Amino acid sequence: MTDFRSTCPIASALDIIGDKWTLVVLRSIMVGQRRYSELLEMPERISTNILADRLQLLEREGLIGKHPYQQRPQRYEYTLTEKGADLLPVMQALVEWSYKYIPGRYQVPESYRTAKPQDIYPNGT
Amino acid sequence: MTDFRSTCPIASALDIIGDKWTLVVLRSIMVGQRRYSELLEMPERISTNILADRLQLLEREGLIGKHPYQQRPQRYEYTLTEKGADLLPVMQALVEWSYKYIPGRYQVPESYRTAKPQDIYPNGT
Repeated sequence: MTDFRSTCPIASALDIIGDKWTLVVLRSIMVGQRRYSELLEMPERISTNILADRLQLLEREGLIGKHPYQQRPQRYEYTLTEKGADLLPVMQALVEWSYKYIPGRYQVPESYRTAKPQDIYPNGT
Repeated sequence: MTDFRSTCPIASALDIIGDKWTLVVLRSIMVGQRRYSELLEMPERISTNILADRLQLLEREGLIGKHPYQQRPQRYEYTLTEKGADLLPVMQALVEWSYKYIPGRYQVPESYRTAKPQDIYPNGT
């Protein structure tokens, strides 16, 4: 269980996802990079130990699920849960802020800027 | 200058504010705790070295301004800039996510949940 610094909802969310990497890994899973090997190739050059740590955190906090796609050796695919998908508005707000203040950012597809979390909920919820 | 890991707007925003403390300090300034001594008393129990570091970061990145309110010893008050105020939607999205997923969080005033960044822009912009 996460140890919360206070009952402030902002601080508490940051107790879970308040670091440079967690939302970046979640972003990559959101856009369809679901395997460890694919995630390792993200342009931010994440190290294997940080990636493993953040995947574990995301799974422990229920933001992603893990599904085997291969046996011997067993390998997993990661998918968003509803709880993870519900961080989309946080990411969209970060995107808009970056566009206003940081020149030269990559232009994400318009559909990403206007999507609702429900659009990316896992099947069956 | 911040060294950006990629041109992804999400990752780039997190290169600046992606840690447990920066947005918490900004939140406190946003709700009117403008002096160092007041900020030190936030319920999250920030240490003096982390507070000094984050205030420096926030000022360097142009998210807050610093204004002397006392001489000998000189002391400063911190206020949001437009760039800092424009992080309000990020904080609001974190608040809504927390309310959905983390029980027992403090209820922020309704006005905070519906405010626009323009409502908290500094005078004269």
